[in-house]
Amino acid sequence: MNTFGHLFRLTSFGESHGKAIGGIVDGFPAGIFIDEDFIAGEMARRRPGQSDLTTARQEADRVQLLSGIFEGRSTGCPIGFMIRNEAQHSQDYAEMREAFRPSHADYTYRQKYGLYDYRGGGRASARETAVRVVGGALAKLALREAGISVEAYTSQIGSITLPYDYRHYDATAAETNAVRCPDAEKAEEMAELIRRVKAEGDTVGGVVTGLIRGCPAGLGEPVFGKLHAALGAAMLSINAAKGFEYGEGFAAASGRGSKLNDAFKPDGQGGITTQTNHSGGIQGGISNGQTIYFRVAFKPVATLLHPQSTVNLHAQPILLQARGRHDPCVVPRAVPIVEAMAAMTILDYYLQSKTTRI
Amino acid sequence: MNTFGHLFRLTSFGESHGKAIGGIVDGFPAGIFIDEDFIAGEMARRRPGQSDLTTARQEADRVQLLSGIFEGRSTGCPIGFMIRNEAQHSQDYAEMREAFRPSHADYTYRQKYGLYDYRGGGRASARETAVRVVGGALAKLALREAGISVEAYTSQIGSITLPYDYRHYDATAAETNAVRCPDAEKAEEMAELIRRVKAEGDTVGGVVTGLIRGCPAGLGEPVFGKLHAALGAAMLSINAAKGFEYGEGFAAASGRGSKLNDAFKPDGQGGITTQTNHSGGIQGGISNGQTIYFRVAFKPVATLLHPQSTVNLHAQPILLQARGRHDPCVVPRAVPIVEAMAAMTILDYYLQSKTTRI
Amino acid sequence: MNTFGHLFRLTSFGESHGKAIGGIVDGFPAGIFIDEDFIAGEMARRRPGQSDLTTARQEADRVQLLSGIFEGRSTGCPIGFMIRNEAQHSQDYAEMREAFRPSHADYTYRQKYGLYDYRGGGRASARETAVRVVGGALAKLALREAGISVEAYTSQIGSITLPYDYRHYDATAAETNAVRCPDAEKAEEMAELIRRVKAEGDTVGGVVTGLIRGCPAGLGEPVFGKLHAALGAAMLSINAAKGFEYGEGFAAASGRGSKLNDAFKPDGQGGITTQTNHSGGIQGGISNGQTIYFRVAFKPVATLLHPQSTVNLHAQPILLQARGRHDPCVVPRAVPIVEAMAAMTILDYYLQSKTTRI
Amino acid sequence: MNTFGHLFRLTSFGESHGKAIGGIVDGFPAGIFIDEDFIAGEMARRRPGQSDLTTARQEADRVQLLSGIFEGRSTGCPIGFMIRNEAQHSQDYAEMREAFRPSHADYTYRQKYGLYDYRGGGRASARETAVRVVGGALAKLALREAGISVEAYTSQIGSITLPYDYRHYDATAAETNAVRCPDAEKAEEMAELIRRVKAEGDTVGGVVTGLIRGCPAGLGEPVFGKLHAALGAAMLSINAAKGFEYGEGFAAASGRGSKLNDAFKPDGQGGITTQTNHSGGIQGGISNGQTIYFRVAFKPVATLLHPQSTVNLHAQPILLQARGRHDPCVVPRAVPIVEAMAAMTILDYYLQSKTTRI
Repeated sequence: MNTFGHLFRLTSFGESHGKAIGGIVDGFPAGIFIDEDFIAGEMARRRPGQSDLTTARQEADRVQLLSGIFEGRSTGCPIGFMIRNEAQHSQDYAEMREAFRPSHADYTYRQKYGLYDYRGGGRASARETAVRVVGGALAKLALREAGISVEAYTSQIGSITLPYDYRHYDATAAETNAVRCPDAEKAEEMAELIRRVKAEGDTVGGVVTGLIRGCPAGLGEPVFGKLHAALGAAMLSINAAKGFEYGEGFAAASGRGSKLNDAFKPDGQGGITTQTNHSGGIQGGISNGQTIYFRVAFKPVATLLHPQSTVNLHAQPILLQARGRHDPCVVPRAVPIVEAMAAMTILDYYLQSKTTRI
Repeated sequence: MNTFGHLFRLTSFGESHGKAIGGIVDGFPAGIFIDEDFIAGEMARRRPGQSDLTTARQEADRVQLLSGIFEGRSTGCPIGFMIRNEAQHSQDYAEMREAFRPSHADYTYRQKYGLYDYRGGGRASARETAVRVVGGALAKLALREAGISVEAYTSQIGSITLPYDYRHYDATAAETNAVRCPDAEKAEEMAELIRRVKAEGDTVGGVVTGLIRGCPAGLGEPVFGKLHAALGAAMLSINAAKGFEYGEGFAAASGRGSKLNDAFKPDGQGGITTQTNHSGGIQGGISNGQTIYFRVAFKPVATLLHPQSTVNLHAQPILLQARGRHDPCVVPRAVPIVEAMAAMTILDYYLQSKTTRI
Repeated sequence: MNTFGHLFRLTSFGESHGKAIGGIVDGFPAGIFIDEDFIAGEMARRRPGQSDLTTARQEADRVQLLSGIFEGRSTGCPIGFMIRNEAQHSQDYAEMREAFRPSHADYTYRQKYGLYDYRGGGRASARETAVRVVGGALAKLALREAGISVEAYTSQIGSITLPYDYRHYDATAAETNAVRCPDAEKAEEMAELIRRVKAEGDTVGGVVTGLIRGCPAGLGEPVFGKLHAALGAAMLSINAAKGFEYGEGFAAASGRGSKLNDAFKPDGQGGITTQTNHSGGIQGGISNGQTIYFRVAFKPVATLLHPQSTVNLHAQPILLQARGRHDPCVVPRAVPIVEAMAAMTILDYYLQSKTTRI
Repeated sequence: MNTFGHLFRLTSFGESHGKAIGGIVDGFPAGIFIDEDFIAGEMARRRPGQSDLTTARQEADRVQLLSGIFEGRSTGCPIGFMIRNEAQHSQDYAEMREAFRPSHADYTYRQKYGLYDYRGGGRASARETAVRVVGGALAKLALREAGISVEAYTSQIGSITLPYDYRHYDATAAETNAVRCPDAEKAEEMAELIRRVKAEGDTVGGVVTGLIRGCPAGLGEPVFGKLHAALGAAMLSINAAKGFEYGEGFAAASGRGSKLNDAFKPDGQGGITTQTNHSGGIQGGISNGQTIYFRVAFKPVATLLHPQSTVNLHAQPILLQARGRHDPCVVPRAVPIVEAMAAMTILDYYLQSKTTRI
């Protein structure tokens, strides 16, 4: 279904080339100051066409907030919002009517529904992530009042990785370059790689690292509703995501318990903290008060400027030549979406945590 | 919450040292033959104490099916079931009353709920996975009638990895050794490593590979309910899981689109298939009819036989000496749990797929 | 939460005097022909200001369908829609800022949320029922393809009741008069009563009877999800509803089993039917193939043209004089809303019924 | 589905003649003292065979609490519980194998699922209400800590009604007679009627009135989740329920707004109260702090001692002679079930109300 979350819930609608995309945020706490400039700023971060590293598609992405806000504050009633789609060149997609593009969702949508809006990827287009960013921006505004912040940055493009882990970097520095990498030197290498790949008509993948700071201990649920399971589902629902890990992640598979356990110690103020944070801020599925960190892998975009062999809906082989715009790497633009999904997940669990005592 | 799934739903209860664990399977299709021997067999696969590679804890794990079955077939009404806990030595855990074990859930449960059943890990114990295996066994029985099968095997222990991918192995071969690895030679290396780690009182992690075969095209949902997002959440909810990837996974981050796209081709019978399966059987969040494959990373168990420094609930430093049983590696026993979670996820989406047309 | 339904789901947003109201229909089956004229017709039935019997508020209620439809058919993806609010005279409501109107939701919203949009009732305004009508119209379009129809009519205004039960009337005849009563003589009496009450500045209640025809046997769920429980919740969620009964309803309380049982008999075509239909088409919470009928009681509208004593938000006594428009009886306009809620409920269970077998 | 509630959730399993019935309570607040004697007392109130007015079926109904409780308090983890079914005389039901009993669920279950457990009504038996009483008893224990109490009493049997409304009676007085009516004189009349009906082999219906006292203002949700809509669904899910009304209910349909509005007034302590309570403690779907009251209509039980004409599963006419036990009136035994459902509903919304502010 097209709803994310349980207590905080975002329901989304819209296709790439329809009249509009939008959504409804339900379960949003009452009394939160709604900073519309902040929301517009988050939308601007997601918008394509801002550097030579991304697709040239221009999206104005003006969000209209339609309800649930009164005299500048949230009322606790659903916040409906809409983003008009600018006139797209649907004719560009006429040949898509019958072609199944490799590694796109055309074929699977058709198998599932019998018909689909083939224009620009329809519902499967990354355009829908704009709706997530609105939901995430609202969630961030609520989390801010609880002292929780969410950040993300590009930590890998192709084979170029960062030499240090999250403790070494200031994620806000990532916003100073088009790659959204907090290591200026690596950022330049990554940008160079993306430009080269773009020139080849090819695409390249990467990894985004996400951070949640200030999260109190006690968020998450035992068994099926573990906090990292919800974070994982949130991240894996982003277009092109292929993997998720938190804390030491896949590297923990080759490690020893004696090296990976996080010993508890007094925090010096009567409370408890840990000496290390291999766990990634979550133990037994519940936050322990340390910084939550995780990584999301993104594959290269499937749309190439090369001709590709495929079939049409009559199962006949054809040669497909993509036209027009081409996004060599989605990773930089995935950064604000990773943040949005993390913010919504944490707010959902934050609200849930208020129901564990009478 | 303690419920997994939407249309097929498993709700779970129970602690390690309480009277019983159990669950309720709701939304199970009517008319399915309930093979109790098969269920007992699946439970036997999960049971600890079966080789020198795992914990010595003995669990008889006799499942009592209490409802929802009539004359050998499911009625469509909820299937309640229960597994009595054998008398455990709760006194072993007396010292746990006040100690927060490193990288266990003691501290986070206490922060969340104010109190917790500290005996043997309580609700956070891996004992709860027995309930998942019952749910998974039922799901497998239903999927069998739809021609869908689920398999898993150990593909990494510590730094020992398999040289080939899933197409090279027969997963059923994995059941012939205690490590559950389909490569006999590697299995012996892995067993040796686990024995060495055990002798050191230490623990080691690993990776399980999961496979879903015979899954028709069209399972999954756009946007938030992508099939791999649900699979990821299911896997990440297993105790000690730290990461999930499907298809090329994290490796896709360093790849190029031109190498990773799966070109469509006629399947020779009027249908459509793909030339490669880098996507892992899922495109745009919906199954495409190819084999679904994924990998789950598990960290080393947190319980060591070494003394560990930690704090008690008064935030005072203490030295903790674990006693009794010690599980050097959970990975082999995670194999049937990975299968159970995959089977329940797929059945849930299979039922959902029946609602997309009137 | 602001979502109705489980598989078919309508999520709603909007306040009386905000920018727009609207919603998202999710889980709608793919391939359904979307008859926009039919939807507009349903909206016209709900619209106020159409006769001298209702409020004078004018609402154009032009629905914009924003997504989920391609080349005239539903795609299975969410259908977002919006209805702009015409410029309302918010200044009329300035005095509402501090006053709690008797038997309105002002006080309870404030207690719940701390703040509320007091203009025209805000979220509690009957304006939100326009969103229900859009959802209901879509549901009717899908049900039509399954041979199921939904009808409703006014069966009581004040103390004026109909002499016969549902079998005697043609519900479509109800649409020929402003009261929506299928008995022309009674309709005239009712209209007369409403005019008299309106002249007094007072309001009057009534009852709407709902009918579902062509519903196959097997819709509904045992125990908590009984079909009539879901219908009841749907009806009771309509503004001003105070009671719900189905089949013989409250009258069954004073009856005997020997008179109320519905004996089964062969239907003459190899199937089974019942001799009577006291059960109202539902037995054990599941439809039996007979006509489903039920009744919904509506109280008189709380807004009077009389001055009323109340308090302001400082708990000080004040005298409140309502101004402007006055709706003497909501019952005729509740008829299409009862239909809409019934249609959505039935479609939801219709989809659910497809998941009971593999 | 077999789950009730959203944050507080009861999932139920079991058939009349299976091995056991039981359930899982999830989302129960942590730290609540679990008074097992109180739970046993609630079960005793529901148990049949306690007077000459009900069925002779003997049910020991010993509840085993299996999890979620530690050192006498709830842990916040799921509370699993089970009630063994005593050996029932399944052979009594052999003839039910092929017969569809009039106004029972045999036919509809078979249409829905293709097969069903016909022994003693299977899943549709009122036996499942024992599970509701356990859930309700737990909910009452939690509500007690919030100062909220739930009561119910018989207010009508056949045509015998009470002369006064809820304000006149002390509901606890109802527990002193077998009819559970707080008016001793009427109780005797009612008991006499039930005995007469029983002697005739017939059955009779009635009405239960429910009360919720001490409920704070602010419980409930706008639009679809109105508090009375949830209460209505809860009540209508009880076996044999045919109608629900709250506040003035169906009587409001014939009233005038000028008589039914509840004027606000200062409560003398700086707060606000109402002069009357026609609304039944709920305005705009949200509690206003007054006593919530409602009425539930129950039909006569369908099982008669008379021979009844019906058909078998081959659609052949047969004459059915019920044997054995016969329950002339379910209404007195419905009283604790009405309380249970009300308690669970209110606790669910009470928890929800904690999530409306950050």
